[in-house]
Order: sequence, then structure tokens, then C-alpha cells
Amino acid sequence: MQSTQVAIIGAGPSGLLLGQLLSRAGIHNVILEQRSDEHVLARVRAGILEQGTVDLLEEAGVADRLHQEGLVHDGIYIAFNGERQHIALSSLTGGRSVTVYGQTEITRDLMAARAAAGLSTHYEAAGVALHDFESGGKPWVSYLRNGKPEVLHCDYIAGCDGFHGVSRHSIAPDAFKTFERTYPFGWLGVLADTPPVAPELVYAQHPRGFALCSMRSRTRSRCYIQCCLTDSLNQWSDELFWAELRMRLDPVSAAALQPAAALEKSIAPLRSFVAEPMRFGRLFLAGDAAHIVPPTGAKGLNLAASDVRYLAQGLIEHYREHSSIALNHYSARALQRVWRAERFSWAMTRLLHSFPDQGSFDHRLQQAELDYLFSSTAAQTSLAENYVGLALDA
Amino acid sequence: MQSTQVAIIGAGPSGLLLGQLLSRAGIHNVILEQRSDEHVLARVRAGILEQGTVDLLEEAGVADRLHQEGLVHDGIYIAFNGERQHIALSSLTGGRSVTVYGQTEITRDLMAARAAAGLSTHYEAAGVALHDFESGGKPWVSYLRNGKPEVLHCDYIAGCDGFHGVSRHSIAPDAFKTFERTYPFGWLGVLADTPPVAPELVYAQHPRGFALCSMRSRTRSRCYIQCCLTDSLNQWSDELFWAELRMRLDPVSAAALQPAAALEKSIAPLRSFVAEPMRFGRLFLAGDAAHIVPPTGAKGLNLAASDVRYLAQGLIEHYREHSSIALNHYSARALQRVWRAERFSWAMTRLLHSFPDQGSFDHRLQQAELDYLFSSTAAQTSLAENYVGLALDA
Repeated sequence: MQSTQVAIIGAGPSGLLLGQLLSRAGIHNVILEQRSDEHVLARVRAGILEQGTVDLLEEAGVADRLHQEGLVHDGIYIAFNGERQHIALSSLTGGRSVTVYGQTEITRDLMAARAAAGLSTHYEAAGVALHDFESGGKPWVSYLRNGKPEVLHCDYIAGCDGFHGVSRHSIAPDAFKTFERTYPFGWLGVLADTPPVAPELVYAQHPRGFALCSMRSRTRSRCYIQCCLTDSLNQWSDELFWAELRMRLDPVSAAALQPAAALEKSIAPLRSFVAEPMRFGRLFLAGDAAHIVPPTGAKGLNLAASDVRYLAQGLIEHYREHSSIALNHYSARALQRVWRAERFSWAMTRLLHSFPDQGSFDHRLQQAELDYLFSSTAAQTSLAENYVGLALDA
Repeated sequence: MQSTQVAIIGAGPSGLLLGQLLSRAGIHNVILEQRSDEHVLARVRAGILEQGTVDLLEEAGVADRLHQEGLVHDGIYIAFNGERQHIALSSLTGGRSVTVYGQTEITRDLMAARAAAGLSTHYEAAGVALHDFESGGKPWVSYLRNGKPEVLHCDYIAGCDGFHGVSRHSIAPDAFKTFERTYPFGWLGVLADTPPVAPELVYAQHPRGFALCSMRSRTRSRCYIQCCLTDSLNQWSDELFWAELRMRLDPVSAAALQPAAALEKSIAPLRSFVAEPMRFGRLFLAGDAAHIVPPTGAKGLNLAASDVRYLAQGLIEHYREHSSIALNHYSARALQRVWRAERFSWAMTRLLHSFPDQGSFDHRLQQAELDYLFSSTAAQTSLAENYVGLALDA
């Protein structure tokens, strides 16, 4: 029988970051992860980090490689009607910027820091089940390790195990409300060793659908096109993907596009989802376990990071100062930020995609929205302040 | 047989203002109006004037009473969640403001100016029909005056006769496209001699539906509540109206509300509508004849004024300088502004009304939109710059 102060479910970036912040504050924690470490590292995910996320990774002591290898971006492009317009994020927001650094790299850095500190992560923990978190007493977690039943006693459980994880699914259905929207399209993403078409991200709105030219480094691109949810990967040869992407870009970006073999190719649906509240007795949900945003605003990882920041603050205050004020405010604090990010992610998604059920009035409205955005400093400032990340509630 | 340079169809504010601007530039015009002058003056309509509209009325020489009696407003209130927040229009837009002055008063001032100049307005012109405006030659208008057929020859026709007017209906259906959205609710409006609940307009978002406390003067209020399209006026006694309005307001506004007998009470549907283009040979559409906005952003009259401004510029340039450049650009210039106003009016409508078919995610998104608006100077600036009126394309 083992025991710890905080049992963390999930060894993705949320769980690892929480573990790191708690460990540095002297709070013992154990991470249980259903998958293997190789599996976790093989996930290809976005990595556009808000300044607040970078600050938090610094605070966690895992920002050295990020500062060496991450690309600081002061703007984005939006391509529309044959032209690309620059949204000057930094000059519109008093100097704030975003940093391009893959989520996989953050996971790797956090894993290395955890290993160096000799802290426990139990990978391939099967059949994880959460117990007694609503009982008033202390909770415990049961799981199988190499087929052998294990029990982990703890003060608190942090559910950082994503949308499909066991944490949210352990809660009585009538104890929370969910809010959801699905979108009638997906994103077909390709990772390839080819230089980005521009020094910053290019978001494109086109009658054929949305496109995005993102990057992992100066030599590796991550590009996306809006596709049908019923499309399958074998319909999309590399050649077809690049040809379709090129058609959706402005001429300058299209001319810079150099097709290359796909290192990874996948189709992801888009979803908006929020579960409320984010605390259930001694169980706290953080990140994708509690909410999903469509990827258009690059908010998913940043929102997970701000959840983790609030949760770590609450737990540290609890153990250091014997005060539960911040823990008791965790759900409300996190949810205010969550809904602001849901709003922005939905607005960016609506602005830039083609909706199959869109009538001609809605289509013109979307054009008017882009026309207005390009004509108005206030509208650009609003987009920029959301993109670089709204101020954290201190 | 009469002839004129410009035949103007409709003696509402658009037609009268166009006539006034043309007359002052020495361009002869005749206005034909299907209704009587009493009928036109009996229409109760909003009157929140953008600075650009006030400027144009000054240019037309009809702004004296407006400046004496109009109320200059530097802000609006938005009530939500039991509180009202101030949107400081003027300080957010470098000193621009709006002026409250009823549309009926503008019509009255324009009628007086036209009468003083001895210009022709033919009221109660029945069976107006537009001819040969697409022929390449000169158009003419036929109508009945006191049952007697009349013909008016002209160089150009200006269709200023509103959404239901004959002008747009004279155009071949395949010569233009329409874009339309209807909304699943109406506005029940009451005019009453009671002081406004606040020195500036109060827009309210409430689970029971939208409400607006507007005014005509310091002693006369014009108030609206969102209602069902199937509601009839006899369901809404004065008492019920004021009680419902009070429930939808924040406590401060509600406490200031003093019910009074309705001088006028009506239910209006909300509609977004655009017809494109706005020119057909020698026929130009202006104002509601070409487009309708829902009243939430107070854009209808202002949009009509900017159409008239562009059209008057085009006609004056044509007669003075024998150049058709501005006339040829009329439709595109006007439509760019129209779509920006359509976008804003739709966004304000969506932000502030309860939608019967709204799911729980959309409802929360709406709350998040208001929460973000109140937290962000950029978002408030964007709202303010649209409310006071986007810059006119010079």
C-alpha cells in the first residue's frame, strides 16, 4: 500500500506540470498513466504557448530548452480574398508574444525533470479507478501494475487525464453539467520536414475551407486543412494534401509552399466542451479532462496550463498555510478563464471555416467580419489580446 | 408632362434628405410619395444619430432644431446579471458621440426646409411605376394624382421608398441577389411621457429576453422588450409591459422606472436584409429599399443617411463635373458600409437577445461574450466605434 499527498491521473503535460510545481513546493505526488511513456511522447500536438504558459514553465524550472529552441512570434497572418494580412500581436498588446514549441517537447522536458528529481510516474497503470473522493474522508486510487492490484492513498486527486480519461467518468452524472458543440468538419493535419511558408503562422479563410500553416521549427512544418468528417486518410495522398492547401492560401504563401513527404498525417474532429464544476470533493479536474476547445485559437494547452497554475496555487496554499480559500475558488477561477477561451476559440473557428450549412447571409456576414477585422485596430487588438492570452486572474 | 433631373421615390427621411442635398447643389428633383404627409409624420421610429449623420444634416442646412433639442450621449449602459455597465462611447472613440433626436423630427425639419424652398413633393401619388431605367435612355415614372395619370421624365431615379416600396420591386428578379435573416422574436415598443430611467440608453440582456430603455427627450421615453412574434398587442396591457420591462432591468434602472400610459404601442419583427447591387442602370436604391438591419444597433437611419451621402455626391459630381466615377462606385461604396453595419447589428442582436432555439452551450457563450466585453477595453472600443459609426469612406 502506497500513499501520497496528491495522486495525479495522467502523465500528459498537465499532469507532469502539476507534479513538477507541487514537487518543487515540497508536496509529494504520484502520477498514474494508463499508457507507456513512448506512447505519450508519440502524440503529435500543437504548441503555441502564451506568455503566461512560458512563465509557468519557467517557474517549474523546465524552460531552458524552450528558450533555446522555441520560436518567439510577434504576429500571425490571416489570408483571405487572395491577400494575407498581418495581425501584429505584440505591438497591439503592449509587447506580448507567443512561443512556438511543440507540446511533445514540453512533455519531454517535464519527464526529464521528473526523472532527475527521482519522482514516481507509474506508466501502463491499467484499470485505474478513483474512490471515496466525495466521501468527506480521504480518497484512494486502485489500479493494476503488471497485472497486480495496487492501491494509492492520497489527500487529493488531480484528474489530468484528458477528455476520454477515467477522472471525469468517475463522477456521478448528476453531479455535473456539460456544455458541448460539435462542428461539421475536421482538421486534416500533416507534419513534414519543409520550411514554413512564412516566418509566422498563416491562417486562411477560403471558399474551399479553412487552412493553417503552422510550424515546429524553421525546417519542420505542421499544416492543416479543413476536411469532411467522413474523409479517410487514404483519400488524402501527400500530393493531394499539398495541392489542396496551396489552393486555399494567398498567392504569396502558396508560392513559398514546398511539398514534402508527410511524417505524420491525421484527421481530428473539432469540439467545444465544458464540464462544470471542476471540483468534486477531493477530486479536481484540469485541462482536457474538464474542457475541450477547437484548435483554431491554439488555446487547449494554454488553458490546461492555467488550470494547473490555479490548482497548484490552491494545493500549495493548503499545505503551507492550512488555508483552503484558493482550493475552494479553483473551479470558479478556472471556469471564468475556460469560458473566455471557449468564446475566443469558437469565434476564431466561426470566422475562418466554411460551414456546409451556412446560408448566403451568414457567408456574407463572415466576409464582413474579416473585412471589419482588417479595417479596425480595436478588432485586431481584441483578437490579439485573446491570442497571446488574456491576463491571468492573480 | 413634367420633367426633372432626379425623381425621388419616397418622402421619408432618405428621400427628403437626398432632395435637400440635391436642391442645395442646384439639381432639380421631384419627390413622389404614396402616403399623405400626415401619415409619414405619424410613423414612430428610432432616432440615435451618428456623428456622420448629424454632420450630413448640418450640410443639408436642417440641423438647427436638432442642435437645440437633440440630446448628445457620450455612452450607453448594458445591463446584465443584475448590474449595469457603462460603455463610454466618447472616451473610447476619441470624443465621438451620438445624438438622440427622433426620426419624425428629422422628417419634419426636412419637410419644412423643402416647403420653404418651394420644392415639389407629390404626396398620395398612387400606382407609382418606374420605366426604362435599364434601357440606356432616360427613365420615366408614371403615377396617379387625384386619380389622374401623370408622367414624370427624369435623368435618374432614386428609390428611397423603403423595404416594401415599389422601387426594388420594379427590378427584374434575376438582376439582383438578396441576403436575408429573420429572427425568432419581435420588439414590443411603447412610447410614453415618463422620464428615461437613466441619462443614456440602457440595453438589457436577461433570461426573460432583451429590453431597451431609450428616449425621445428628458420627459419622453421609448422602451422596448423582446416578445414572441405571435404576441398580439391586446395581450400586453400597459401594466404588463412595464412590469415585464422592470423584471428585465438591473435594480438601479428598475428602481428609476416610472410607468405611464402608452402614447403608442406596436410590435415589430426583426430582420436582416441586403439587396445587391444598389444600382440598376439609372435607378439607385438607398436606405431601407436596399437593406434592413435589426434595430439593436440603431443603424437603420444612419445607414440610409450614408447611402444618401454617397448618392448625392455621385449625382452632384455627375452634374457639376460631368464625371460618372462616383456614381459608378455608389453601389460598391455603399455596400461595404452596409455589410459592416449588418455585421454589427447582427452581433448586437445576438449578444443581447434570448434565442428560443439556443442550446446550453450557446447560452453560456453569450454570457462569456458579455463577461469578456465588460473585461476588455479592446472589445468595448470595437463596440463603441461601431455604435458611434465607422468612419465614412471619403
